[in-house]
Amino acid sequence: MSQTTAPSPRTTVKRLPIRASYDREAIRSILDEALICHLGFASGGQPYVIPTIHARRDDHLLIHGSQASRMLRTVRTGVDVCVTVTLLDGLVLARSAFHHSMNYRSVVILGRGLEVIGHDEKLDAMRTLVEHVVPGRWNDARKPNELELKQTMILRLPISEASAKIRTGGPSDDEDDYSLPIWAGVLPLTLTPLAPIADARLGAGTVTPDYVRRYVRPLAT
Amino acid sequence: MSQTTAPSPRTTVKRLPIRASYDREAIRSILDEALICHLGFASGGQPYVIPTIHARRDDHLLIHGSQASRMLRTVRTGVDVCVTVTLLDGLVLARSAFHHSMNYRSVVILGRGLEVIGHDEKLDAMRTLVEHVVPGRWNDARKPNELELKQTMILRLPISEASAKIRTGGPSDDEDDYSLPIWAGVLPLTLTPLAPIADARLGAGTVTPDYVRRYVRPLAT
Repeated sequence: MSQTTAPSPRTTVKRLPIRASYDREAIRSILDEALICHLGFASGGQPYVIPTIHARRDDHLLIHGSQASRMLRTVRTGVDVCVTVTLLDGLVLARSAFHHSMNYRSVVILGRGLEVIGHDEKLDAMRTLVEHVVPGRWNDARKPNELELKQTMILRLPISEASAKIRTGGPSDDEDDYSLPIWAGVLPLTLTPLAPIADARLGAGTVTPDYVRRYVRPLAT
Repeated sequence: MSQTTAPSPRTTVKRLPIRASYDREAIRSILDEALICHLGFASGGQPYVIPTIHARRDDHLLIHGSQASRMLRTVRTGVDVCVTVTLLDGLVLARSAFHHSMNYRSVVILGRGLEVIGHDEKLDAMRTLVEHVVPGRWNDARKPNELELKQTMILRLPISEASAKIRTGGPSDDEDDYSLPIWAGVLPLTLTPLAPIADARLGAGTVTPDYVRRYVRPLAT
């Protein structure tokens, strides 16, 4: 249990503690592998959960959106948020319907977002976000100009009150059920890239970069 | 725009209306394809977003959990919830960093959950949930007994205040950027099953069912 991810009473996983982990590296690797997060905030008592793009920068999570986004305009006022990231790893088929489950890795972060303001900090955040999704892309892309930087809102959330929950392995059936003639096991699932689709207006002879052709998730480290 | 999914001011998509759809069939197909949802609720002002398993039953969403789950015990008191389902379809690489995006399909449902109580209704809900994740599995699995039914909590949320948001297609670059010698296009992503892993205690000669060997998502209709 590391200092940066010490569980508060709020993030302590109540159910099935065997699945809970506060390990800083586990939290980091889940955040780094996931392509999207779900950001929760309340407005007028109503909770909203919005899918969006994130990236980790050391012990902070960066969240990206438009200046016109209602979500980010609410979140930057400093309201409490919850950011949840979930990776689905497989379907767990037990002999009993009751013990069916899923293998997954998830992280829940509670806290308050701060808007990233400075020119250099914003540019660095945009680079981090692009490189999070497609490592290697930033060098090739046309960099943001002043207007684009202004139109982009970036929030920074400390990864301090965070917990991970992980389920791995096969089904756990009731002892009496193991003798039943029912197939049981795990069907692993993975996010796979298909063949890249070049833009219709691509200049002739433009080569598909290796970071697209050989895209894999999770990333090799 | 159908009656069951009429957007309220709360679910009306504020940004990029071209990506918003209230079509009932679009909402249904996204809910039916997705294996997990993210359930948001607030407790003491703090929003929480929890990944969980859902299934659609006509115009209701079923959410499944344990009687001991803090999430479901909070939600069944009738608090406002937001259930969001997101399918990631691809990475959109524009020539400019600013126009990078993702292709996705998402649904946001606002409302209040009602606990499913009756024996037959609960059994039907469990069947719906198992069949949602692995169509064909219910017939093979050992059915829930009375104790298991009691230990399972199921909530039912009307799909009445709901909206879908969909992005498809290639990048949309600034006109001046099209002449840049930068690769642009889409890298499609899909959730793919790997080879099934049989449980270590499986009886000799137990055949892997077709609904596992030939598992596909989205489902053929």
